[in-house]
Amino acid sequence: MQEVLERIRAFRDERDWKQFHDPKSLAASISIEAAELLEEFQWKTAEESYRHVAERKEAVSDEIADVAIYLFELADIAGIDLKAAILAKLAKNALKYPVEKSRGTNKKYTEL
Amino acid sequence: MQEVLERIRAFRDERDWKQFHDPKSLAASISIEAAELLEEFQWKTAEESYRHVAERKEAVSDEIADVAIYLFELADIAGIDLKAAILAKLAKNALKYPVEKSRGTNKKYTEL
Amino acid sequence: MQEVLERIRAFRDERDWKQFHDPKSLAASISIEAAELLEEFQWKTAEESYRHVAERKEAVSDEIADVAIYLFELADIAGIDLKAAILAKLAKNALKYPVEKSRGTNKKYTEL
Amino acid sequence: MQEVLERIRAFRDERDWKQFHDPKSLAASISIEAAELLEEFQWKTAEESYRHVAERKEAVSDEIADVAIYLFELADIAGIDLKAAILAKLAKNALKYPVEKSRGTNKKYTEL
Repeated sequence: MQEVLERIRAFRDERDWKQFHDPKSLAASISIEAAELLEEFQWKTAEESYRHVAERKEAVSDEIADVAIYLFELADIAGIDLKAAILAKLAKNALKYPVEKSRGTNKKYTEL
Repeated sequence: MQEVLERIRAFRDERDWKQFHDPKSLAASISIEAAELLEEFQWKTAEESYRHVAERKEAVSDEIADVAIYLFELADIAGIDLKAAILAKLAKNALKYPVEKSRGTNKKYTEL
Repeated sequence: MQEVLERIRAFRDERDWKQFHDPKSLAASISIEAAELLEEFQWKTAEESYRHVAERKEAVSDEIADVAIYLFELADIAGIDLKAAILAKLAKNALKYPVEKSRGTNKKYTEL
Repeated sequence: MQEVLERIRAFRDERDWKQFHDPKSLAASISIEAAELLEEFQWKTAEESYRHVAERKEAVSDEIADVAIYLFELADIAGIDLKAAILAKLAKNALKYPVEKSRGTNKKYTEL
């Protein structure tokens, strides 16, 4: 992940954009890009969405990347190691969703 | 990134959740988690948002991780290599935002 | 709509919150509340989502209202008449989606 | 609001789109349109966002209308009266944010 992060930083700094990339604006941008990704599937059924990722792989790839770029950047300016953050959250989620209670169900932990 | 991805897959498969994680539902979940991240900064100024990431580092870290987990998962089921996707998108963005035109401005490429 | 708008303004002004409700923060809040509404249906199928609105009518109603409150407020501070805005947009959409081309299809106008 | 709702229904039904507009897809569309509205202010400061709604009034109006159209439609298929929903939610919010505790502060009710 370190190499990717350095490329993202370089892209931003060559353009002198750090001044605009405060945490609130980065979080807003993550939401904006996430919605563009969701738009790929807007009126599709779940079944159609599987075909769509195959047929529109480059577009989906670009939208995923847009979310990822700002997510890496926000983690970076917040001093958060993304890999450690993911592993720590998976550990918390394992407590909220114990295997024996959550297996095969789409219920939220509040409903389990 | 490979190790993180394997941990995410293991978490999902131990719970037999792949059946619910169609691309459309994953994209919706990325938007939902992105909004929870944005909520951390909801009524704050840009300046306050810098202090907030320091004071609420664990909460921000958890919200970033939630977005990342579903993003890794969607890329995975779509057969997309996340690192390659990010590097390819940075290359496209460099064409949309040439350094000489975009340096120090927050204008969109459509306004440049 | 005028009566509703006056109640929303009164709620905000009794709390002296107009100072925090700049257009960017209101737009962020609309996205945040929209995602809470979407969360009601997070891992559900389209079919389950019909049952869900019946079974969780009050929760869905509250989430819809949260989006609406900030949407009314943003239109108000932008000097936009919401009813006129909706009718004007429907007229534009009718040009993008002519009945004869868009009838019975979930394709985007860019795909028609 | 009744007249607006009838125009929205007519637009949808002339195109035979009700079949695609399940609650989950409508909620996703509300998030998508909310993010397009937020994009208007993406890298702007709060101050710039006030100027932006004046300079780009038609674009902002269209994005607000897009959110509103799907919001009216979701309320409608869920059997929810939008006006009643807003008034009921304002009453709940008044309990979460009593005037004396929330006046002039941007703290969440969980922090009050």
